[in-house]
Amino acid sequence: MTATAETSTGTKIVLGQNQYGKAEVRLVKVTRDTARHQIQDLNVTSQLRGDFEAAHTAGDNAHVVATDTQKNTVYAFARDGFATTEEFLLRLGNHFTEDFDWVTGGRWAAQQFFWDRINDHDHAFARNKSEVRTAVLEISGSEKTLVAGIEDLTVLKSTGSEFHGFPRDKYTTLQETTDRILATDVSARWRYNTLDVDFDAVYESVRGLLLKAFAETHSLALQQTMYEMGRAVLEAHPEIDEIKMSLPNKHHFLVDLQPFGQDNPNEVFYAADRPYGLIEATIQREGSRADHPIWANIAGFC
Amino acid sequence: MTATAETSTGTKIVLGQNQYGKAEVRLVKVTRDTARHQIQDLNVTSQLRGDFEAAHTAGDNAHVVATDTQKNTVYAFARDGFATTEEFLLRLGNHFTEDFDWVTGGRWAAQQFFWDRINDHDHAFARNKSEVRTAVLEISGSEKTLVAGIEDLTVLKSTGSEFHGFPRDKYTTLQETTDRILATDVSARWRYNTLDVDFDAVYESVRGLLLKAFAETHSLALQQTMYEMGRAVLEAHPEIDEIKMSLPNKHHFLVDLQPFGQDNPNEVFYAADRPYGLIEATIQREGSRADHPIWANIAGFC
Amino acid sequence: MTATAETSTGTKIVLGQNQYGKAEVRLVKVTRDTARHQIQDLNVTSQLRGDFEAAHTAGDNAHVVATDTQKNTVYAFARDGFATTEEFLLRLGNHFTEDFDWVTGGRWAAQQFFWDRINDHDHAFARNKSEVRTAVLEISGSEKTLVAGIEDLTVLKSTGSEFHGFPRDKYTTLQETTDRILATDVSARWRYNTLDVDFDAVYESVRGLLLKAFAETHSLALQQTMYEMGRAVLEAHPEIDEIKMSLPNKHHFLVDLQPFGQDNPNEVFYAADRPYGLIEATIQREGSRADHPIWANIAGFC
Amino acid sequence: MTATAETSTGTKIVLGQNQYGKAEVRLVKVTRDTARHQIQDLNVTSQLRGDFEAAHTAGDNAHVVATDTQKNTVYAFARDGFATTEEFLLRLGNHFTEDFDWVTGGRWAAQQFFWDRINDHDHAFARNKSEVRTAVLEISGSEKTLVAGIEDLTVLKSTGSEFHGFPRDKYTTLQETTDRILATDVSARWRYNTLDVDFDAVYESVRGLLLKAFAETHSLALQQTMYEMGRAVLEAHPEIDEIKMSLPNKHHFLVDLQPFGQDNPNEVFYAADRPYGLIEATIQREGSRADHPIWANIAGFC
Repeated sequence: MTATAETSTGTKIVLGQNQYGKAEVRLVKVTRDTARHQIQDLNVTSQLRGDFEAAHTAGDNAHVVATDTQKNTVYAFARDGFATTEEFLLRLGNHFTEDFDWVTGGRWAAQQFFWDRINDHDHAFARNKSEVRTAVLEISGSEKTLVAGIEDLTVLKSTGSEFHGFPRDKYTTLQETTDRILATDVSARWRYNTLDVDFDAVYESVRGLLLKAFAETHSLALQQTMYEMGRAVLEAHPEIDEIKMSLPNKHHFLVDLQPFGQDNPNEVFYAADRPYGLIEATIQREGSRADHPIWANIAGFC
Repeated sequence: MTATAETSTGTKIVLGQNQYGKAEVRLVKVTRDTARHQIQDLNVTSQLRGDFEAAHTAGDNAHVVATDTQKNTVYAFARDGFATTEEFLLRLGNHFTEDFDWVTGGRWAAQQFFWDRINDHDHAFARNKSEVRTAVLEISGSEKTLVAGIEDLTVLKSTGSEFHGFPRDKYTTLQETTDRILATDVSARWRYNTLDVDFDAVYESVRGLLLKAFAETHSLALQQTMYEMGRAVLEAHPEIDEIKMSLPNKHHFLVDLQPFGQDNPNEVFYAADRPYGLIEATIQREGSRADHPIWANIAGFC
Repeated sequence: MTATAETSTGTKIVLGQNQYGKAEVRLVKVTRDTARHQIQDLNVTSQLRGDFEAAHTAGDNAHVVATDTQKNTVYAFARDGFATTEEFLLRLGNHFTEDFDWVTGGRWAAQQFFWDRINDHDHAFARNKSEVRTAVLEISGSEKTLVAGIEDLTVLKSTGSEFHGFPRDKYTTLQETTDRILATDVSARWRYNTLDVDFDAVYESVRGLLLKAFAETHSLALQQTMYEMGRAVLEAHPEIDEIKMSLPNKHHFLVDLQPFGQDNPNEVFYAADRPYGLIEATIQREGSRADHPIWANIAGFC
Repeated sequence: MTATAETSTGTKIVLGQNQYGKAEVRLVKVTRDTARHQIQDLNVTSQLRGDFEAAHTAGDNAHVVATDTQKNTVYAFARDGFATTEEFLLRLGNHFTEDFDWVTGGRWAAQQFFWDRINDHDHAFARNKSEVRTAVLEISGSEKTLVAGIEDLTVLKSTGSEFHGFPRDKYTTLQETTDRILATDVSARWRYNTLDVDFDAVYESVRGLLLKAFAETHSLALQQTMYEMGRAVLEAHPEIDEIKMSLPNKHHFLVDLQPFGQDNPNEVFYAADRPYGLIEATIQREGSRADHPIWANIAGFC
């Protein structure tokens, strides 16, 4: 059996892009150097790329670093502690690409969950579920790329949002409005142009800039709000080359109360589940690389 | 066709307990009396009980207040505003039981979602997903009962939790421990013995008491922690007769790092999904009613 | 510390109903006596009741059969094989109540997942996700009660469903219809009046009766369809005393195509998520026990 | 305001790739030309690309075909009927790119849900949830590309799977095995090199080939099984240039029953949730286009 097989039509079949690893390794690291404990709560995925042809075409596992081994490595490295999620991913990626000749790259990703102290207690915490932090490292040969992100951040403006001036065709029934609810779940990912970043500080800053721009932009379209959010981030952070956002327009429909003899001056809304608008864009620094391959493995970004 | 039908074995078949209505009416109410908007975000369910036999046995809908009508009523009543979720449910319940002769009771429930202001903005908000508030009203004839609750509140202690002294049989392999992670998702429901309650204030107080007892109890068993949480609530709130909790014991397993030449002094944990412990109990005021029928329709409580 | 504590108002606080155990033990049992393998795929929950007061009030675990031990017992018993899920639960329940003096009862439940053979292969299977079978055993002293069930069975009629004749009040806007889509997710649970049942055969029969009654009843209300479904089961199965169903009315709204110059003779529908109707009832054998306590721990049934 | 804004560091910020539309339009189409009804059940997403710069940079909606209009178009076109999901997407894509000058491309996608007749009934159906069919159309200028797929197809082999010969390093603890359970959820997507396809027939054929190869391949690695699955598809279907699969390795761990004095000859397994292996690859026809941009918007494929 070989990597190529001739088909009835004479063309050969080959193995293309591939990667494999262990997904969703749930790691909770407690730092207890002092009585005041620290928690780091991650969901880690490790995937390797390189010469894995024989595994696919012949079931030869000589190159297959077991996914169980990848999981063990995550836990073993965690024992040594790490300052930021990004640094932890870099240590993992360096290890696998340096220790195994045939591993020429890969993808290491994490979700980071937040915990707040209960009443400033030393070792009692409540999870803050209002956002999730993300990080993805891609190594391809000598190139290392980091994308950081935020997801599950749900925001709403109860006014300060208009939508009008759109084209009307045979299928258009939507009324124009100068006052509507604007709500979305922010999913944003930004690509660093360097690995020399104060990752926690930049995350906090980006998060604040996204929220501030959402709140303060008088919105004429969710596209415009999104662009302002991205622009604010790029203007403040030269270490970021591009930011991608995927924003559902979570419709809040004004309920028609006229049948019941009531007005409804933008007070009573039905929050719909589906369908929803879906607004996606890249905001980037002029001249920066477009179509970076790291995006191919990040779900839901255009 | 009648309500009873003779079976081959001679016994008759009858309609037993029943209820129907509209579930998960998503209501967002914006109060905009001033430029500083307020948001109330609810997921409301309305279910009626009474004489609905003919609908079941003959498809006669003369008594069937349409579930669509129930939904409309939710939105129409919201237009008038409401101070607390519990008061809103009471208005709904009173309306349906008073306006329709054959409606002798029912169940009105809501989840309440929280929003925080973004940078103290007047009309921009971010959803606080770290907990959900719940309320259930049951009316049965002239009796009205309210149960309030909290759910999805995830808490963790990184130390201050032991588990030992349990019996060992042929199937016991668990080691005793004097230091483990204790983590759970708090689901608690408490039954008021009166309708004359400052519902928002009591909710805030109960939430604080549950968190404080979880944090401060040195735990010998999750059962003990749960009991202390409930006791704290009942001691502080004479208007509450009983509190039920359903607490998953979310296992965090210490990872064995010895194969890698490392110790693991309670620093590196694997957060497991399933199975999980499930600890459930009622803490109640002595002499208060046990087996109140309102619990039959509240999922997941013993 | 004692089980009762005096509050500021002078009343005592006591432990009420309680249970604990291990939830969602995922068990896959392969029977490989011959080359033609059999799969049993269960999600098992075990919860004990009895004298667990000291655990709650004093953190004394002398009676606390560890939830880990309960999990181990599930796997150890599975090694011996079992014919039906119900028999497996009975073996578990008997074990815990007989081997531990202070365990006076409990609750053992399972979801059962189905697998179909791929092309009648001996050991290759594809999961049939179109339904889930459920079973609950409750032991209370010497009484043993079994409830079987089916869930996640989604059915739809594209015609043969009417809804009219309902009362109209100030809040009623729904139009009457003589032809609508009727769709629901069947959740049904039935209580046996004996433990001497051919559980697999009855499950298959009940499943078939529910589907047949849904399909063949010309529906004037979902209540009527539900009643016919339950009646068919009770008429055919004297070993069943009652059946409870919880049926969402999954609305399919006719899309208004008039703005586009099109008619819509019940051809194009919008399938809505929320809100949905929720129709629940017990159909029972006359004279059978109402309010059996086993229902208190089965989510979502009136 | 312009599309570019100078930052503090002097570089300009520009709008990159972008798309917008309506996601998850739930469409149920009933064909009732005869008494024997047909159901088509889709979840449709429409997203447009082209000149939408002004919407982002100036809130100018002159080019923004409302997402509500896109939704209306889905329902209006459904009224005319369609033979296959792919043909429906093509009609949508052609409409938007032909009717609006500034729309130069886009993405139209659907999930298709299956319904089986209940007892061969004319208008009563039960949903077959064991798989979901998918389709994605991308239009970019004059190029139209179709990717079809299957997801949520869960398969398991109870034997006929080995895993050994993998490299061992400091972090490797996994034992080699010559007999394990192999289980996965099949997510596969294949790209057509033509639009002239009998889409329903090819879907059925591909589905069968994937299942057959999974069942009949004696597996030495999930990578090998996956490759055989893909090869079988490409060998049989010259109209397909490449197929991508993303296969979780759903671990079933043999339970250690030795502490209970029992053996466990591959009979009792614990089905784990997380972490899981994740095996992903492209199998392609030699010389076919790699890195087709349509994959950038298909979640979870390498």
